Amino acid sequence: MASSQSVGAEQRLSDLGIELPTPPRPFGAYVESVQSGRLLFLSGMLPVVDHKPKYVGRLGQELDTESGRDALRTASMSALSAARAHLGTLDKVTRIVRLGVYLATSGDFFDQPKVADAASELFESIFGKEKTSVRMVLGVASLPLGMPVELEVIMEVAE
Amino acid sequence: MASSQSVGAEQRLSDLGIELPTPPRPFGAYVESVQSGRLLFLSGMLPVVDHKPKYVGRLGQELDTESGRDALRTASMSALSAARAHLGTLDKVTRIVRLGVYLATSGDFFDQPKVADAASELFESIFGKEKTSVRMVLGVASLPLGMPVELEVIMEVAE
Amino acid sequence: MASSQSVGAEQRLSDLGIELPTPPRPFGAYVESVQSGRLLFLSGMLPVVDHKPKYVGRLGQELDTESGRDALRTASMSALSAARAHLGTLDKVTRIVRLGVYLATSGDFFDQPKVADAASELFESIFGKEKTSVRMVLGVASLPLGMPVELEVIMEVAE
Repeated sequence: MASSQSVGAEQRLSDLGIELPTPPRPFGAYVESVQSGRLLFLSGMLPVVDHKPKYVGRLGQELDTESGRDALRTASMSALSAARAHLGTLDKVTRIVRLGVYLATSGDFFDQPKVADAASELFESIFGKEKTSVRMVLGVASLPLGMPVELEVIMEVAE
Repeated sequence: MASSQSVGAEQRLSDLGIELPTPPRPFGAYVESVQSGRLLFLSGMLPVVDHKPKYVGRLGQELDTESGRDALRTASMSALSAARAHLGTLDKVTRIVRLGVYLATSGDFFDQPKVADAASELFESIFGKEKTSVRMVLGVASLPLGMPVELEVIMEVAE
Repeated sequence: MASSQSVGAEQRLSDLGIELPTPPRPFGAYVESVQSGRLLFLSGMLPVVDHKPKYVGRLGQELDTESGRDALRTASMSALSAARAHLGTLDKVTRIVRLGVYLATSGDFFDQPKVADAASELFESIFGKEKTSVRMVLGVASLPLGMPVELEVIMEVAE
């Protein structure tokens, strides 16, 4: 059986039956991706479907850990779609460098790592364990349009 | 009429009648700019004039959206001034890579994109649409010295 | 007397009598360091000892400025240990590029720069003033497992 090293990300996506959404559109005067050298920076990705919030609220208040995980998976799908729109194919991704996970939380929500793992696990299943990123997780006061999660991604890509 | 591509950033600044303030000074044991390869990292820029806060307070509480936009414009001017101090001239900027916009908000302020656009629009008017950045916006609990906004910038610069 | 430029980071550590802890272990599906080109990205470092929180609580509430400084020093030691584990030796660090300092604060805690300086000063004493970083400081709603501080580091390293 082929290891994750010999199977490309696009093949993995297809094997997993994952169909990416249409690329996200900005909510303001910015773009969704900028490449400098071999680093691809993506804008903060939100849990939107068709440019509309899929979730609104705060973790530990209106929303629980499982909803937070689903919201972050949704944001992750947007990130993958934005990266593919930039690169043509996700097979060009040589490393996930950094995930920034920002969660709108009530003061007493401390389950951040479990929510953040929803993004890390999805990326790992597609790019393989050897491309796993560093990670930064914060509980914040609020996110654009009242959404509960935001995901920032830096990837290293083939030249 | 010349397009933004053929007119340099310094000329645009001058055409717009924008005079940059003196470069910001650190509030602690850090520097305002570090370049590594072609990436220029700036410290988090605050809405200060002459090293003193121009605004103190939280968006959605003591301060409204328009004050937030003005505060962020002030922080953006400091960022431009710090970048020029580092580079000699803003004409060396080849791309705005990333804007991180951090807003001290009350829990129910969700107008973050509109405030963040104040920075994005200023940068666009100076560097042109083709150099527009990715963006990350967060509502946070507090910022240094009680100020309402902080702006982090990564630029790509000519070698 | 030798200047900081001629003395390596490992020698400085030893001169200062600082012994680094064992490298931190992740709290989820991520790794502690990723290098891309000459940039070394570290995960958000927490004030843990033996994988357990040394501090829990919020600055300006359960914890004061001095506890915040000690917590951030603890997180900084983890960052140094993670970097050494990646590089083999801290003498390969050519520049501290960026420190991101995230503090779980009550709404009315504005002493962020003084807390953040605990990290900056430690790095300066080891790497020398000429390698000082840019810095970004935020007061956030909550951090993983209820800890009061988190530190994100980007270093430039020799190839």
